[in-house]
Amino acid sequence: MSVEAVVSDLTDRLVRGLPPGAVVVDPDVTAGYRHDMAGFCEAGEPAVLVFPETVEQVQHVLRTATELRVPVVPQGARTGLSGGANAVDGCILLSLVKLDRILEIDPVNRIAVVQPGVVNAELSRAVAGHGLAYPPDPSSWESCTIGGNIGTGAGGLCCVKYGVTSEYVLGLDVVLPDGRLLTTGRRTAKGVAGYDLTRLLVGSEGTLGVVVRAVLALRPAPAPQLALAAEFPSADAACAAVCEVMARGFTPSLMELMDSTTVRAVNAMARMGLPDSTRALLLVAFDSVDPAAELAAVAELCRAAGATEAVPAESPAESELLLQARRLALPALDRLGTTMIDDVAVPRSRMAEMLRGVAGIAERQALTIGVVCHAGDGNTHPVVVFDPADPAETDRARRSFDEIMALGLALGGTITGEHGVGLLKRDWLARELGPVGLEVQRGVKAVFDPLGIMNPGKTL
Amino acid sequence: MSVEAVVSDLTDRLVRGLPPGAVVVDPDVTAGYRHDMAGFCEAGEPAVLVFPETVEQVQHVLRTATELRVPVVPQGARTGLSGGANAVDGCILLSLVKLDRILEIDPVNRIAVVQPGVVNAELSRAVAGHGLAYPPDPSSWESCTIGGNIGTGAGGLCCVKYGVTSEYVLGLDVVLPDGRLLTTGRRTAKGVAGYDLTRLLVGSEGTLGVVVRAVLALRPAPAPQLALAAEFPSADAACAAVCEVMARGFTPSLMELMDSTTVRAVNAMARMGLPDSTRALLLVAFDSVDPAAELAAVAELCRAAGATEAVPAESPAESELLLQARRLALPALDRLGTTMIDDVAVPRSRMAEMLRGVAGIAERQALTIGVVCHAGDGNTHPVVVFDPADPAETDRARRSFDEIMALGLALGGTITGEHGVGLLKRDWLARELGPVGLEVQRGVKAVFDPLGIMNPGKTL
Repeated sequence: MSVEAVVSDLTDRLVRGLPPGAVVVDPDVTAGYRHDMAGFCEAGEPAVLVFPETVEQVQHVLRTATELRVPVVPQGARTGLSGGANAVDGCILLSLVKLDRILEIDPVNRIAVVQPGVVNAELSRAVAGHGLAYPPDPSSWESCTIGGNIGTGAGGLCCVKYGVTSEYVLGLDVVLPDGRLLTTGRRTAKGVAGYDLTRLLVGSEGTLGVVVRAVLALRPAPAPQLALAAEFPSADAACAAVCEVMARGFTPSLMELMDSTTVRAVNAMARMGLPDSTRALLLVAFDSVDPAAELAAVAELCRAAGATEAVPAESPAESELLLQARRLALPALDRLGTTMIDDVAVPRSRMAEMLRGVAGIAERQALTIGVVCHAGDGNTHPVVVFDPADPAETDRARRSFDEIMALGLALGGTITGEHGVGLLKRDWLARELGPVGLEVQRGVKAVFDPLGIMNPGKTL
Repeated sequence: MSVEAVVSDLTDRLVRGLPPGAVVVDPDVTAGYRHDMAGFCEAGEPAVLVFPETVEQVQHVLRTATELRVPVVPQGARTGLSGGANAVDGCILLSLVKLDRILEIDPVNRIAVVQPGVVNAELSRAVAGHGLAYPPDPSSWESCTIGGNIGTGAGGLCCVKYGVTSEYVLGLDVVLPDGRLLTTGRRTAKGVAGYDLTRLLVGSEGTLGVVVRAVLALRPAPAPQLALAAEFPSADAACAAVCEVMARGFTPSLMELMDSTTVRAVNAMARMGLPDSTRALLLVAFDSVDPAAELAAVAELCRAAGATEAVPAESPAESELLLQARRLALPALDRLGTTMIDDVAVPRSRMAEMLRGVAGIAERQALTIGVVCHAGDGNTHPVVVFDPADPAETDRARRSFDEIMALGLALGGTITGEHGVGLLKRDWLARELGPVGLEVQRGVKAVFDPLGIMNPGKTL
């Protein structure tokens, strides 16, 4: 059969089990779905884009894919940063955005049951009405979907206190590549019956199956947080303060660090009045019973570590203003050129070395690299700025991206704290896992997806 | 070869890679290692008992087992309650108790690195010296090992606030059945590189490999907790109070419920002065900044739910006295006969139905069944009391044990909240997982253990 005939056969079969308009082949439309938000990642030409609306329709899509041996790339809002949702040639792009219902919010058991296409912020707002919170808060929370969060194991600003997505997924319904429905986990607070397939699926980036329903744990809504901003004469001093705060047993609800490049970029964009002499800005917040007392103690620790200023906000509104600087970090760096955001987590005690190393890489490669960190977690996001029209600079950007990962591994870290491996870091995964780990991971993949049709070429 | 020759060949090979005295064949000694603490579980005759002292020696044992196709049963302190550590015929009993070193305690990164034979309480005491806590606190914490806790995914009293073992395991070194060393996870607070094999291994009950090193997350040591005891005229009323406390957004550090049978047994043993008319005793504790205020509010909720008494302790010491009643629950029930402890978790909103159902089972089977619950988690421990010398009663006890699991599943629960499947609940696992889940779990098992020598007959 010709390529056209194959695609036409695929489309015909898909249409039979999907509602009108749910199967899209118009390349003008599908082109808009080929990429997530990662740079440096190729994207193939999809055969077809589908929008199932029910679990049964997802099963139909997967069964069809298995029958015809067609690769399937699941997608949420495509806000990912590692190419995990990018099309591969001839694939079915399986968009889950129409499975977007919150099925249940249960305040007594503190769970929500949702479909994968529910937007993170919508869930957060819905549970807030019950005095509850769904903590994971990736930067894209206003648009990213819970299915995508589960696929990547997403983090966010709150993780230093509340942990990442995997802590909040109790159970899943997953359509396997052959169309069968696998139910994992539970609705109970605890449970150890059999292997923990739920946690295995979180962060598996659509390579094992398609999540169609999730039971999520909720928490009581925290009090509004109160923040301080501390200005340091060096990143070393700021990192020392971070270590001291954590070693003293504080539990901040947020602890973010911006380096001098980032501070200058934010200043240039928003005129926030941060002194350009600031080499590192540390934001620390508490949502505890007496945040002012904790902030006062942390301000003291910051000054002892060398902070030139350490000013606690006096209200949640004033705190929001301080945090605004952090929220503007990526947009501000984006104004300097095309950006590539890395995602290397190191033990927090090594974060100072990490920042020094990144500064060295920026200097050697003659590039601008701004760094923002979820400092409490040692999760650094070096943002490499480059001009894609300049091949030599693009090449240096790519090289520095790799050097940053190598540095992270050398410091006992991981190549990805919360963004996932996707296409972007696939070649690096083997270095982190080692040969035995890689072999076991491949074995696990084959159990779920013996034909290798689920998001092929991603992660492993 | 005769059985003796096979055992002798096995022993000869094991001795070559192990220190003097580490290979034990004396049946008088090995007999003491055939069982964990579960009832109703058969135990086989081991070929040999080994006590390796290093990772390399564990690798030698596993390589030997693979070469000779001999089953291996890993053991910690054998405090398990589901037969997971019971010998199978002809096996190597692999005791990890001599790998008992705390390798590292790191207050800045809030991690500990330990060998599997470290006793839970020893780790807790060691990290307390750094102002830190390792929360999981199974009842056997004074004797159980971290390796065993990881194997079963152990819980405890603290879980309602602090979660279970799996939340605290960041990375593992695991010897695979063929002797290769698999390293999973990380030392960082966050990380999503590849499938989460760490969480897959937690709770795998020694059926996938042998944990020889664990990177554990620690937390700042909590403040001493303050408790209240509330007496209710019915289990229904106590369960309603539990739901109300959780729905109102409280985060107790402990919330335990004892039914009337258990209260009477504790009274009979320890003369604690609880009125025998009490149909349910609820213990609630907080380790927050102002526990007295939270206890006062909870006392009010308890009275509104029908509590006849709800008395907060006025000091941590007084709280300890209240919690003593809970600590004595199992010993007190043990005095009434042989006991079988079940471990069914249900959504906490269904716990009242669960308790009513268990009372019905006790009545129909003419048995004493006391129930203690980690009430905040909906994790019930019905304790079936029977006389093993009475075959009919033993049979009824077994039947009631099964009826309790069936009831738990019917209420949307799980057959095991924290004790594991082991031998005891193996036949029930299929009912909880369903055919697709079971097939995937078997596939995962085969990836790690293609020869099926790791703790065969357990869990799956």
